[in-house]
Amino acid sequence: DMALRHYTLDFSLSTAVPGLLSIFHEQEMTETVHDTNGHGYLATFVGKNGRLVILRVHSHGLVTIDLQCYEDDNILLNALEKKLKVLLNGNITRIKRLPAIVRGAKVDRYWPTADGRLIEYDIDRVVYEEDSAYQNIKILHSQQFGNILVLNGDVNLAESDLAYTQAIIGSGKENYAGKEVLILGGGDGGILAEVVKQKPKMITMVEISFKVIDGCRTHMRKTCGNILDNLKGDCYQVIEDCVPVLKKYVQEGRMFDYVINDLTAVPISTEPEEDSTWEFLRLILDLSIKVLHPAGKYFTQVSLVLLATAEYDECKLLILLLLIYQSSISSVGIN
Amino acid sequence: DMALRHYTLDFSLSTAVPGLLSIFHEQEMTETVHDTNGHGYLATFVGKNGRLVILRVHSHGLVTIDLQCYEDDNILLNALEKKLKVLLNGNITRIKRLPAIVRGAKVDRYWPTADGRLIEYDIDRVVYEEDSAYQNIKILHSQQFGNILVLNGDVNLAESDLAYTQAIIGSGKENYAGKEVLILGGGDGGILAEVVKQKPKMITMVEISFKVIDGCRTHMRKTCGNILDNLKGDCYQVIEDCVPVLKKYVQEGRMFDYVINDLTAVPISTEPEEDSTWEFLRLILDLSIKVLHPAGKYFTQVSLVLLATAEYDECKLLILLLLIYQSSISSVGIN
Repeated sequence: DMALRHYTLDFSLSTAVPGLLSIFHEQEMTETVHDTNGHGYLATFVGKNGRLVILRVHSHGLVTIDLQCYEDDNILLNALEKKLKVLLNGNITRIKRLPAIVRGAKVDRYWPTADGRLIEYDIDRVVYEEDSAYQNIKILHSQQFGNILVLNGDVNLAESDLAYTQAIIGSGKENYAGKEVLILGGGDGGILAEVVKQKPKMITMVEISFKVIDGCRTHMRKTCGNILDNLKGDCYQVIEDCVPVLKKYVQEGRMFDYVINDLTAVPISTEPEEDSTWEFLRLILDLSIKVLHPAGKYFTQVSLVLLATAEYDECKLLILLLLIYQSSISSVGIN
Repeated sequence: DMALRHYTLDFSLSTAVPGLLSIFHEQEMTETVHDTNGHGYLATFVGKNGRLVILRVHSHGLVTIDLQCYEDDNILLNALEKKLKVLLNGNITRIKRLPAIVRGAKVDRYWPTADGRLIEYDIDRVVYEEDSAYQNIKILHSQQFGNILVLNGDVNLAESDLAYTQAIIGSGKENYAGKEVLILGGGDGGILAEVVKQKPKMITMVEISFKVIDGCRTHMRKTCGNILDNLKGDCYQVIEDCVPVLKKYVQEGRMFDYVINDLTAVPISTEPEEDSTWEFLRLILDLSIKVLHPAGKYFTQVSLVLLATAEYDECKLLILLLLIYQSSISSVGIN
């Protein structure tokens, strides 16, 4: 794998140390000192095998070192860190060395969270990848978490995430026996597999793409068991659709005892007029409540992150909607 | 905060695109093209306010762009990505943009796992920091996980990690009433707080540093409750020590019904002769088994990561030890 290894080593100095540069001169690298117009010292060093070092001494005492190379190279950085500690003895107030970031690798291990945090998973292979009309669908294998479903780059569910499924169906406190249940999304089959055990009257699951189901049926079996082997059973049916079916149910006056909204954190709209995330969330909530029995329950995951990144007015809107709806239904279960 | 924002934008090209460079020429940056001796194209661009861009077109079709700047600057990268997509229309086989890495910030959000994976937490402040003779002890506040105990840079336990505590004490299947219990480590107080509820005869907890306890007593109360407010209770005592106490118990012939090993993934030796991680793990296991009743139980977390990174012989040694000990005690509980 010709991926680029990008190492970083940063430290903060209490005083300027002019001897710092000598360390790099030993490395047989071609040095270029750049004019930063008063923004500290900046030098680039190009060495053998495409190796690149960027040394910056920032004006506020921070020193950052980048090492880019095509092979694992902890040796250089270990030596560097050791020498720096000797040279800068007593002047280092903080030191931080991150694991190398591997860029352009065949198997991508970096899947940031919805709130933009960088997370590296121990992913060793891609077991499924398909593009539907609406989504890029990936299933990635992790030693630690089992297979992981990633929709449009957003980590959805790992095989180890039974806790999530249990939470969204009410943490074992609900009795689904003989009930009408509507699942929005849920393509990994986890909710369906759990609820079906309780012998509901009928579960209707509307999933925007059967390609999600195709992947999960084969590669997320710790989540879905064998429930996705058939899209129709004694007490369940899976339909490839979402909003249009919901709208149809509203028109027909169909009612459910439970609506479980398992759509992605940033749900996918299929209509241009629903292109604002918040408009779309409102539409889903609105339609869901219309098909819910007065004594029914609505379960959903609310991404706190989404709320946190939302405009204040949008937050207020959602909370207001929840309050309005709450007065018309017996309980809003948010896990 | 004068921290350095380090953005990366990488993509893979199916064919070489010579027009690529023109994008950067518009940015009023000073360009330096470096000789890489046949390892692709490398140019550095220095702009206003200490802004640095590194553009590399690697020989195997990978393009990597680094942007370092002192302010959040998604605008440049957004514009760049958009232009690149137009310019390289149809030639991009993959694109990857990571959240900016913030280097040298006052509050460090990057705490790699024991197996060297890069993880960014939503940490917004340091609530406790002390150095003991053996460890750097930090408690960091995360919106998502509550306060997090970090020992020597290794994330130990978050307030949200009740599941870990429940697992290591036997997942609710053990009856501690009237039993003699020895906890190794456990300074966050989670195990102590849980086991004490079952009215054991006596819990002895040996923690290497009371500075851990001091921090957790105040800042990890969701984990420890009020149990650490007193270091001695009706049925528990906390001792600041570890191996020497264990050795003394062996000499005195003291026996426990349960030994719960909650030491860090890479435990801290206080003796130079125990400086190999594996020697030390062996010592702890050896002493633990010696103070365990023949019908007693030993609970521990085994870091699979540690096993994975261990030399093969060391793995064999540990597995062998476990097998030997297993024949002399009734069960080895590994959660």
